[in-house]
Formats: sequence, structure tokens, C-alpha cells
Amino acid sequence: MKAIIHVGLKPGVLDPQGRAIARSLVDLGFNGVKDARQGKVIELDLTHADKAAAQKDVTNMCEKLLANTVIESYRITIED
Amino acid sequence: MKAIIHVGLKPGVLDPQGRAIARSLVDLGFNGVKDARQGKVIELDLTHADKAAAQKDVTNMCEKLLANTVIESYRITIED
Repeated sequence: MKAIIHVGLKPGVLDPQGRAIARSLVDLGFNGVKDARQGKVIELDLTHADKAAAQKDVTNMCEKLLANTVIESYRITIED
Repeated sequence: MKAIIHVGLKPGVLDPQGRAIARSLVDLGFNGVKDARQGKVIELDLTHADKAAAQKDVTNMCEKLLANTVIESYRITIED
């Protein structure tokens, strides 16, 4: 079983990395870029046989380690 | 128009960040984790009106800045 976790900054939180990307792209001549945001994608290979148990564990993993829940939100997708 | 770019390590490239995540999760007691991989997701707000032109520009952005094409591959999704 596999879990795919998207972690991104919550709306309203300053995204210096995204700003730097947007500015660099414009500096390289890509004028069509208005804004940029960067997040993480974490893929986990799991030994779970049950999707619900996997969903519960991965939620705990996000809350404890994978996301800084003060400034980040996360979205979990479990795949067979 | 919006572009969503997934950037990840090519198969076979060592992923120390992924290894560290997997090890930390097991240390926290999540024994169901066999392996982990971490990539980036970059969202761009674009001024383009034409999808094909946006696709071409974003591909160039990846080749020049957003992905290290020696060790990373990327996937682009253009949304209206």
C-alpha cells in the first residue's frame, strides 16, 4: 500500500521560497509568472493491509512529524 | 491560468531526505513504513491565455530553474 501526502503552507502564510522562485523566473525572462508557491510531496511505502488503518496512521504521522500544523496543511491519498 | 509542477528524484537516485523521514517515522513507533520519498510541488499563477504557450513556457522554466534535470524528473499540469 502507498500513501501520497501533499504538504503546503496555509493561505496567508508568507512563502519566501515561492516569492524567490517567482522573482527568479521573471529575472530569467519568464514574464508570464504572477506568483509561485512551493510545497512538499511525500510518498510512503506501507506494510498496511487495511486502508482505514493506513489512513489513521498516516494522519498521525503528519500531525507528529511530516507537517508543521501551525503553518502547514496536508492532504493524504492512500493507494493500493 | 495555473501550472502545477511535480518534481521528484529519478529512480535509482539516492534520497537521503526520504531515508531520514522513514527512519524518523519508525523511531516514532510507526513500524508500517517500509520506505519514503520526498519531492516538490510548485504552483505557478500565470498570465497566459493559451494553454499550449503556457505548457511550452513552463517546460522551459523546469529545464532552466525548477528541476535539476540531471537527477530530477518533472510532471506539469496546466489548469484554467
